[in-house]
Amino acid sequence: MRMLSLIVFVLGIGITVSGQTEDSVFIKRLSDEILTNGKAYDNLHDLTKKIGGRLSGSPQMVKAEQWGLQLMRETGADKAWLQECMVPHWVRGGMDEASFKFLDKNFQGKNTLDVLALGNSVGTGSNGVTAEVLIVNSFDELEAKKDQVKGKIVFYNYKFNATFVNTFEAYGDAGKYRGGGPSRAAKYGAVGVIVRSLSESEDNNPHTGATRYDSAFAKIPAVAIGLRDADRLSGYLNNNKVEVFFKTNGHFLPDTIGHNVIGELEGTEFPDQIITIGGHLDSWDPAEGAHDDGAGVVHTIEVLRAFKALGYKPKHTIRFVLFANEENGLRGGTKYAEEAKSKNEKHIFALESDAGGFTPRGFSFGGTPAQLKKAQSWTPLLHPYGVYEIATGGGGSDIGPLNRTFQTPVSELSPDSQRYFDYHHARNDVFENVNKRELELGAVNMAALIYLVDKYGL
Amino acid sequence: MRMLSLIVFVLGIGITVSGQTEDSVFIKRLSDEILTNGKAYDNLHDLTKKIGGRLSGSPQMVKAEQWGLQLMRETGADKAWLQECMVPHWVRGGMDEASFKFLDKNFQGKNTLDVLALGNSVGTGSNGVTAEVLIVNSFDELEAKKDQVKGKIVFYNYKFNATFVNTFEAYGDAGKYRGGGPSRAAKYGAVGVIVRSLSESEDNNPHTGATRYDSAFAKIPAVAIGLRDADRLSGYLNNNKVEVFFKTNGHFLPDTIGHNVIGELEGTEFPDQIITIGGHLDSWDPAEGAHDDGAGVVHTIEVLRAFKALGYKPKHTIRFVLFANEENGLRGGTKYAEEAKSKNEKHIFALESDAGGFTPRGFSFGGTPAQLKKAQSWTPLLHPYGVYEIATGGGGSDIGPLNRTFQTPVSELSPDSQRYFDYHHARNDVFENVNKRELELGAVNMAALIYLVDKYGL
Repeated sequence: MRMLSLIVFVLGIGITVSGQTEDSVFIKRLSDEILTNGKAYDNLHDLTKKIGGRLSGSPQMVKAEQWGLQLMRETGADKAWLQECMVPHWVRGGMDEASFKFLDKNFQGKNTLDVLALGNSVGTGSNGVTAEVLIVNSFDELEAKKDQVKGKIVFYNYKFNATFVNTFEAYGDAGKYRGGGPSRAAKYGAVGVIVRSLSESEDNNPHTGATRYDSAFAKIPAVAIGLRDADRLSGYLNNNKVEVFFKTNGHFLPDTIGHNVIGELEGTEFPDQIITIGGHLDSWDPAEGAHDDGAGVVHTIEVLRAFKALGYKPKHTIRFVLFANEENGLRGGTKYAEEAKSKNEKHIFALESDAGGFTPRGFSFGGTPAQLKKAQSWTPLLHPYGVYEIATGGGGSDIGPLNRTFQTPVSELSPDSQRYFDYHHARNDVFENVNKRELELGAVNMAALIYLVDKYGL
Repeated sequence: MRMLSLIVFVLGIGITVSGQTEDSVFIKRLSDEILTNGKAYDNLHDLTKKIGGRLSGSPQMVKAEQWGLQLMRETGADKAWLQECMVPHWVRGGMDEASFKFLDKNFQGKNTLDVLALGNSVGTGSNGVTAEVLIVNSFDELEAKKDQVKGKIVFYNYKFNATFVNTFEAYGDAGKYRGGGPSRAAKYGAVGVIVRSLSESEDNNPHTGATRYDSAFAKIPAVAIGLRDADRLSGYLNNNKVEVFFKTNGHFLPDTIGHNVIGELEGTEFPDQIITIGGHLDSWDPAEGAHDDGAGVVHTIEVLRAFKALGYKPKHTIRFVLFANEENGLRGGTKYAEEAKSKNEKHIFALESDAGGFTPRGFSFGGTPAQLKKAQSWTPLLHPYGVYEIATGGGGSDIGPLNRTFQTPVSELSPDSQRYFDYHHARNDVFENVNKRELELGAVNMAALIYLVDKYGL
């Protein structure tokens, strides 16, 4: 017994045994409710199949807001409303197309390329862009070849690093080519950019996602290609001169009105202290946004549903938020924090799900060491549901502004990451690639963490 | 420092810091090798697509043995051989078919049922079996209705229990209806059995698997149906009398010759002490056996490949074994232990992969408390690759006989279990439902554990 106390003390596990038991019983009830009567999967079906891709400013996003508002009410929120914010309105503007030919020999094979314009990118104009391709495997190689760039299409063939076990690290590593590649190439006179998709998938789907232009340089059009096309093209470029044609139609319309969708359960003891849980409602246009971030949307609503089903009355006010415009502007998350500040709200915790509907493995956490330690003390309660660790990290894009404004502690669900970039921002991010139980277990662990923060604070 | 030593002491982590560093470096090399140059996925493609389902006694199983033997040699085993054993030879004997009709009203809808005969079950004869259906949701309900059973087809509609987070617990819970259901029903005069598939999948695929007849009762034919058909049929049975016809052709041919495929790396210091790693090569016939247990087969060969690629020379002899006949007889695992005993071999550890090619979460372990504690001390070394725990449990069917014969400590890879029973013994257990990285991470952790046992013993 003394040895056990010692371990409990050393590891900072400070909850009493009776508290643990009561909590473990309640969390088991949450789990049973969600795994048996869960609506997350059905809700995801409706969002993906009846609405589909929902980029900021699109008619689908407007429809999704109304769907979310109605669902918040039906699911039992004390109140639900739309929080208006202006959002950027980029449109793809038509089909992206591309082909290539050899400049130094005849080639009889298939010569189309499957491309997707990067989000926020300019279009090529109706004639498209046609130029010889310069392949580079890194920015260092671009710098070394900068005298050859002028008039060319630069092809960034930087590969996802397979040795990162957590694929988000590979994404963080390779993401700079999608984000900054076009302007880096424009600096040296490139007329277009092709980016190898940020993925390790076995298929050829191109993966879009936001690019950012540096205002110091010309805005040149940019597309992503899938991995098979990237390997094919890089193979050809070993021994040949290759010319690519591509035509894209992306452009910005004036900013338009978008909304965060907010539902609320009012706190019984501390109604002025707010806990936020959310995901983002917008998605890229070529797919259904099932994992990114339909999963986070239905996780959020499922936590509300489970609390209502069990008759749980939170001590603090809990806000269930479907954020606008995560993908290409973060205006929803920004607005949420701005309004919270202007109303002098007190935000004690925020939790996001924006890493897919896969089996949970942990939570990342952003807060003080003491807050982290307290959250980690709950790990044994989450362990039966797949969460093995709560580790230092961010809390998700949409709740970042809240964290920066109020130093609110934040957390994000960390599902297994192995398949996420097979689907991320690609056509195959569809309902069929989400597993019902994996999705539901995310909601189980989020509900449990919200319950614990509501009960014990941070 | 004192506090750290205390924790290390209390938790039984006894490896020196320098040892940890050397080990973590080598395990990182194993991981990088497998995630970068891995052949497990390509090997699985060959096994599933070029050979396919491979039930004991089938021509495909013979082909798979030759494939495995050649691959062991090509991958660099010091020696490789086939270990002969007699195996049961059950054949499905043709297409299974089924339909139903209402006895108390006309019904215009689709009236076929998608069925698969249970493995080892007797066929119906050429006229099939036709009888009214009696639905029971449990054995208790069967007992309560025993007077109504005679001349009927009993439909066991026991559902997978969704509240078990680890789906293998649901399988353990529901498995008795497939295994013992036919004889329990025959005891009261049933003429056939339908079993709700052991699955929580969203599709309608029936899941086969072995049944076992009690010799005290008549052997009656038995089939599995998918979940949608089970729900449909049970819905009809609420208000109607339903007659089912089914026709199956299963039967046993005389036992035939099968083989374990064995490759070996000879130990440099203790060549007479053997560590075994394996999976089973046979599979049920309706699918490709990709997760069950193609994954375990290619995990096993990938560990050999990675050791050779890194020039690792084990201190103990390591046997890489593709076991025969796990699915309907366990003759391969039994033979392996019998021959080991007859040759007075010394087996210090055995590890199996037979739970699918999903992201690893842990290992189950069967051994003494001291052996378990030692294995658990290595968890921090496996943690970066997804293994969070080594927990008490079995070691997998095929190495069970070794454990029972020699008290050899055994272990089994525990991948994430959420999707396993979507595919298990069903037509969709195919290559396309295996993710490359998830598969590879299984091999990484198995290679690491074998390395640690080889270095430190148990």
